[in-house]
Amino acid sequence: MSTQFDHVSVLKQGNVYFDGKCVSHTVIFADGSKKTLGVILPSSLTFSTSVAEVMEVTSGVCKVRLQGQQQWISYSSGERFEVAANSSFDIETVETLNYVCHYG
Amino acid sequence: MSTQFDHVSVLKQGNVYFDGKCVSHTVIFADGSKKTLGVILPSSLTFSTSVAEVMEVTSGVCKVRLQGQQQWISYSSGERFEVAANSSFDIETVETLNYVCHYG
Repeated sequence: MSTQFDHVSVLKQGNVYFDGKCVSHTVIFADGSKKTLGVILPSSLTFSTSVAEVMEVTSGVCKVRLQGQQQWISYSSGERFEVAANSSFDIETVETLNYVCHYG
Repeated sequence: MSTQFDHVSVLKQGNVYFDGKCVSHTVIFADGSKKTLGVILPSSLTFSTSVAEVMEVTSGVCKVRLQGQQQWISYSSGERFEVAANSSFDIETVETLNYVCHYG
């Protein structure tokens, strides 16, 4: 897994969620597609989606429960999970998590 | 002030300081120079520098006191302040601050 994205644009303004438990910056690719690079601090959060996304863990470990499911699944560095549009997921972290969120 | 950096690389791994009160991502330019894009949550923090830097506020307001000075100076969006190498500064924020930190 590459440790960086090349030949991209990045927005100066960050995205702050849940009182700063999640902070991300938006990256735009040459084809116009968008990803966010983010950090989640130790917490239990519920994220809602408007569009489908793929969450890729780039460091750390998390437990995730998708909307409508009972099972929690652990994901660690290099793993990813898909979330449908207009859905949500619960995520628990006990250490700092770095992620890339892929859209579209 | 442009709202984004173009034709850059960005590191996937974020930088987390002060238990997450400050989170940044590192941007690398074609000439090899580096900047960080960061968010500071409401807090009173003291940052130390190893190399000289220029802190540019891109949204929000902060009060800053450089090492060895008694005066606090306010900076808001579009303003910047310089910090010497091997020095420090106190910074107070009461709302989310976005910044770009320029090095070298």
